[in-house]
Amino acid sequence: MKYMLGIKLERNSQLSLARQIYQAMREQMMRGQLEPGEVLPSTRELAKQLAVSRNTAYEAYDMLFAEGFTLSRPGSSTRVASGLRLEKTSTTKQPVDMSGAKSACWKADFRTGRPELRCFPQQLWLQLLHRAAHDMPLKQWSYSGPEGLPILREEIAAWLFRSKGLEVDPRDIFITAGATQALHLLADILFQEGKKIIVEDPCHLGMLRVLQGKGLVIIPVPVDQHGLKSEFLDGEGVGAAYITPSHQFPLGGILPASRRAALLRLSREYNFYIIEDDYDSEFRYEGAPVAPLYSMDSQQVIYVGTFSKILFPALRIGYLILPYKMQEQWRYLRTHADVQNPPFEQAALAEYLRSRKLDRHIRKMRKIYGDRRRVLLSSLEECFSKGWRAWGDAAGLHLALEFPGRSFDRDFAARAREYGICITPADYHSISKGMHLDKIILGYGHLDNDEIRAGIRLLHDFMEEHHLT
Amino acid sequence: MKYMLGIKLERNSQLSLARQIYQAMREQMMRGQLEPGEVLPSTRELAKQLAVSRNTAYEAYDMLFAEGFTLSRPGSSTRVASGLRLEKTSTTKQPVDMSGAKSACWKADFRTGRPELRCFPQQLWLQLLHRAAHDMPLKQWSYSGPEGLPILREEIAAWLFRSKGLEVDPRDIFITAGATQALHLLADILFQEGKKIIVEDPCHLGMLRVLQGKGLVIIPVPVDQHGLKSEFLDGEGVGAAYITPSHQFPLGGILPASRRAALLRLSREYNFYIIEDDYDSEFRYEGAPVAPLYSMDSQQVIYVGTFSKILFPALRIGYLILPYKMQEQWRYLRTHADVQNPPFEQAALAEYLRSRKLDRHIRKMRKIYGDRRRVLLSSLEECFSKGWRAWGDAAGLHLALEFPGRSFDRDFAARAREYGICITPADYHSISKGMHLDKIILGYGHLDNDEIRAGIRLLHDFMEEHHLT
Repeated sequence: MKYMLGIKLERNSQLSLARQIYQAMREQMMRGQLEPGEVLPSTRELAKQLAVSRNTAYEAYDMLFAEGFTLSRPGSSTRVASGLRLEKTSTTKQPVDMSGAKSACWKADFRTGRPELRCFPQQLWLQLLHRAAHDMPLKQWSYSGPEGLPILREEIAAWLFRSKGLEVDPRDIFITAGATQALHLLADILFQEGKKIIVEDPCHLGMLRVLQGKGLVIIPVPVDQHGLKSEFLDGEGVGAAYITPSHQFPLGGILPASRRAALLRLSREYNFYIIEDDYDSEFRYEGAPVAPLYSMDSQQVIYVGTFSKILFPALRIGYLILPYKMQEQWRYLRTHADVQNPPFEQAALAEYLRSRKLDRHIRKMRKIYGDRRRVLLSSLEECFSKGWRAWGDAAGLHLALEFPGRSFDRDFAARAREYGICITPADYHSISKGMHLDKIILGYGHLDNDEIRAGIRLLHDFMEEHHLT
Repeated sequence: MKYMLGIKLERNSQLSLARQIYQAMREQMMRGQLEPGEVLPSTRELAKQLAVSRNTAYEAYDMLFAEGFTLSRPGSSTRVASGLRLEKTSTTKQPVDMSGAKSACWKADFRTGRPELRCFPQQLWLQLLHRAAHDMPLKQWSYSGPEGLPILREEIAAWLFRSKGLEVDPRDIFITAGATQALHLLADILFQEGKKIIVEDPCHLGMLRVLQGKGLVIIPVPVDQHGLKSEFLDGEGVGAAYITPSHQFPLGGILPASRRAALLRLSREYNFYIIEDDYDSEFRYEGAPVAPLYSMDSQQVIYVGTFSKILFPALRIGYLILPYKMQEQWRYLRTHADVQNPPFEQAALAEYLRSRKLDRHIRKMRKIYGDRRRVLLSSLEECFSKGWRAWGDAAGLHLALEFPGRSFDRDFAARAREYGICITPADYHSISKGMHLDKIILGYGHLDNDEIRAGIRLLHDFMEEHHLT
């Protein structure tokens, strides 16, 4: 029987012989080598020809029948169904290189947004995670709701009060899979057709892309060393504003109270929400943490917080403080976006907060990062003497650096990369290009003091070689 | 000094005295009780009046200055800034009831999509999770990429081959936070303005809402006991199709090969993708698992898989198999939606797959669920004798049940709930209402044999009381 010759069985395959027979016959039906109406051999015959057990032949026929490739159950006479013809198409294969993301090995890595993972108490965290997972009630292994675990929402509220003086109802706090997700979903809720969104210029390019991806009309508002320049604000047609008032990204300003008040008055007049991204206000090195804009108006401001920088990015836990009237929409949207966060990390984080381990970790890291910032500044002074100026508040994990009269563009960044230095021109984060060409952004949180010193020396050598100093 | 009388300090508060002073003064400035240009008392004077240390007074003034409420550093004469006036607005408070989601206690809970958690080897999983987290390289505590961990992608590819005969390049597999997220983001990629999406009618209402939330035009195509009725298909203006060919949700049919081929031919002709949601094909009780549509055409079909039903919903891990030309867009979108999955559960799952524990768990659960299905059917026979018919394939965690001539509407479901029975009329999942009024959907996977028997008896009593039998 011709059609059985085409079947090659692999006796040592992980695939059952029945599935191999099924796949081969199915292939022949789709190609037309087995034609509609054709009668297949009996299971006895097939078993004999292919030297398999009768059961195996039976199982293969059962699969073909279940999926409608044949018209009758094995046992009776088995015919090929009609309408199975399907041309083979060429498939686009992956390119051969498997490496994917090449993990570049920088001599100096000034990337932003990277906390120091070497100082995170991993063993302690793993213990908490293990205990939290162990104690998790069985019902929370199912669905536990789009809001997040109640215990975590309560602990975050308590922490916001003791660390920032914020009084928040735990029921207004919604756990997210990070700040990016918060913005990604808020964009869907807040912006109706044709509405515009106010954004700082420069701002975090990744977050800008989130908003642009939703098709929103972006109104860039210039930033100076105190943050958003509120005199450029116009509320006409605005659906929302997205800002970083505690520590402007990337230039580092603290938005002054009068500008905050002006923005809030505008948002009330034109009835739009302000999304406050408080991405790293925990790390302020001179003086107390800055109070969030949210503390001035809890009805107009949506507060976005994250633990990615405080703890570690892989945690994927952030939170939102939402005005009551948006909460039902948020629940609906989160349920239909990705349902909820996993509960285990949430429970571990709740315990980390409850036992004040978070507070201690922040105190420890504030000291470490503050030291690193001082080392960075003194290294700059040593290497570059006087032709530079640090922007913004003494806070966060990166520094915006101005070299008056110099120009840092894409080409500069590319040449620096070739030299082994990963560094971001401020212009990379600009919407209206060219406004901050004389600044570069140095992420230093993840670098120890020696790495900072060596990195700045290397940066200096590179700039000298390229006549940029 | 009048303005100091307003400051009441709480000596036992978690808030520092400095922050309390700062908050009180800030409030007075925003209300206009402290006016622009007004000179504040010296730190010495303030400290004396409020009976706090000079340092505390200094710290409070430093906060006011840092945030721009005052115009000069503490030490020199401190004046109130201008433009701080902000009316108090009334805030919408949460209603008093804190309970949130009342966990209703059903006498018979036939909800769908709930796996049996009591049979999941929790301790074993927790050990794997702990070991995986312990062995996690430090760099994966940072960002590990929108694709998911390479080891998990490889193990899923190996498992798809040995369990379903699918040959998949691990690089085509993308880890998701579940099937809902896969659809939520695919909708953004696939559908351009004005394009339509083919959907089975009835289909999973939650998934339908995901698609509707994106503003897509839905084309419902009727379903019979073999699934999507391909003779109703029209490819004109179609941007995609979303279907459940292995086990139609909720009616349970296996889409026959000829309809599969017809759908694939149409998708090639009109150049649209087919999203295949393979949500519970692992649990088939008579015969081998059904081969995915993906196995017939890996270029036209996007395969969506999930571990929520196989393991437990709180895991929040699913996966996609994507055609090469969509992969860059997917990476970009995932990065700007929620960045990535947490890595710990991914690594634990990879080990669960590598050590074949997943295969064993599926075998065990297939036997348990299969038994439950038989108990369900025999209970139905016992209680209802002959006036009913089970739809679809012997698979999955729920059963679609037809009572010819009967009508199950919203009102029926509401009265059943009052009676203590949670049950879903098939009509609930219908887009064109009224087509499947004579069917109800019974989720049984999470119920043990006694719960099933008691539940069916209760359902029978309820229907008899309401003259529905």
